[in-house]
Amino acid sequence: MSTPTKFNLADTVALLSRTPATLDALLRGMPDLWAQSNEGNGTWSAFDIVGHLIAGERADWMPRLRIILKDGEARPFDPFDRFAQSRESQGKSLEQLLDEFARLRKESLAELEALNLQPPDFTRRGRHPALGPVTASQLIATWAVHDLTHLHQLSRVLAHQYRDAVGPWSAYLGVLKCVGHSAP
Amino acid sequence: MSTPTKFNLADTVALLSRTPATLDALLRGMPDLWAQSNEGNGTWSAFDIVGHLIAGERADWMPRLRIILKDGEARPFDPFDRFAQSRESQGKSLEQLLDEFARLRKESLAELEALNLQPPDFTRRGRHPALGPVTASQLIATWAVHDLTHLHQLSRVLAHQYRDAVGPWSAYLGVLKCVGHSAP
Repeated sequence: MSTPTKFNLADTVALLSRTPATLDALLRGMPDLWAQSNEGNGTWSAFDIVGHLIAGERADWMPRLRIILKDGEARPFDPFDRFAQSRESQGKSLEQLLDEFARLRKESLAELEALNLQPPDFTRRGRHPALGPVTASQLIATWAVHDLTHLHQLSRVLAHQYRDAVGPWSAYLGVLKCVGHSAP
Repeated sequence: MSTPTKFNLADTVALLSRTPATLDALLRGMPDLWAQSNEGNGTWSAFDIVGHLIAGERADWMPRLRIILKDGEARPFDPFDRFAQSRESQGKSLEQLLDEFARLRKESLAELEALNLQPPDFTRRGRHPALGPVTASQLIATWAVHDLTHLHQLSRVLAHQYRDAVGPWSAYLGVLKCVGHSAP
């Protein structure tokens, strides 16, 4: 049960397709304490995280897959702007962002399905500007784990708001000991 | 925005009431790769985590709040069996567990609402068998952060299954660097 598993497209789509509804169930209508608070200067709130996932749908996942299938390693991916959301989310409500993310994810997955990728396609290569050669399956797996990285971050950001409120129980609550692990 | 915030009952209930639908959106109908895999011997799968949350509704949160309100510090809480779910979940489907958790959480929150707690109640004290004196508000805040600890764990357990599949991107995916932080 514990061996990290090989890539499977249907399993990956099962996860990718559930992320918008998961975030919707957790965040729609949430009080500002949870929706807008972050972990300190320069860190992200729930609102920022949903904005970042939207930016990924627009500029990262399917655009990079298209580059792999069209140009292979000949054309490196465009670097991904991890801060695009601060401009693009401006003036929107969290509910608007949740709707936008759900719509874009649905479009991305419809395009992925229409590609009708077969196992030999999964080993096709592209070139990441910093990481070097990567395969189509690594890109699609990363898309799913990127969702999970931000669900992980989101649970930590929310928990942070009650760091003091839990009193001595903080000793037992693993999420309060997570210091974040993403590369800068 | 970053200062850990004081306890507020309505905000806490807003979070507690969303956890069942969040887990439902993420897990219902998920392939076994995500639903049944864990992080290695003796660790928990998504299935185990939902079972653990059910055990908490039955034996931990509202029962402990009742003890605080009835007996105060005179009667220590019963210790919480963190492994009760391995017996109680046996033979059930993940979908049955999700339904059971949603039902129990709804009942817990109805009982909490019926108590009509007022600010002076939040400072009433009980005695944790290991941590010593704790307040009602600390217990209710911990209930919410306990949900978040297991959402945090769940995102990590799911991500673990694709630890190899993401290839060189693992360097950028914070969730793959989380080693778990809960006390034994």
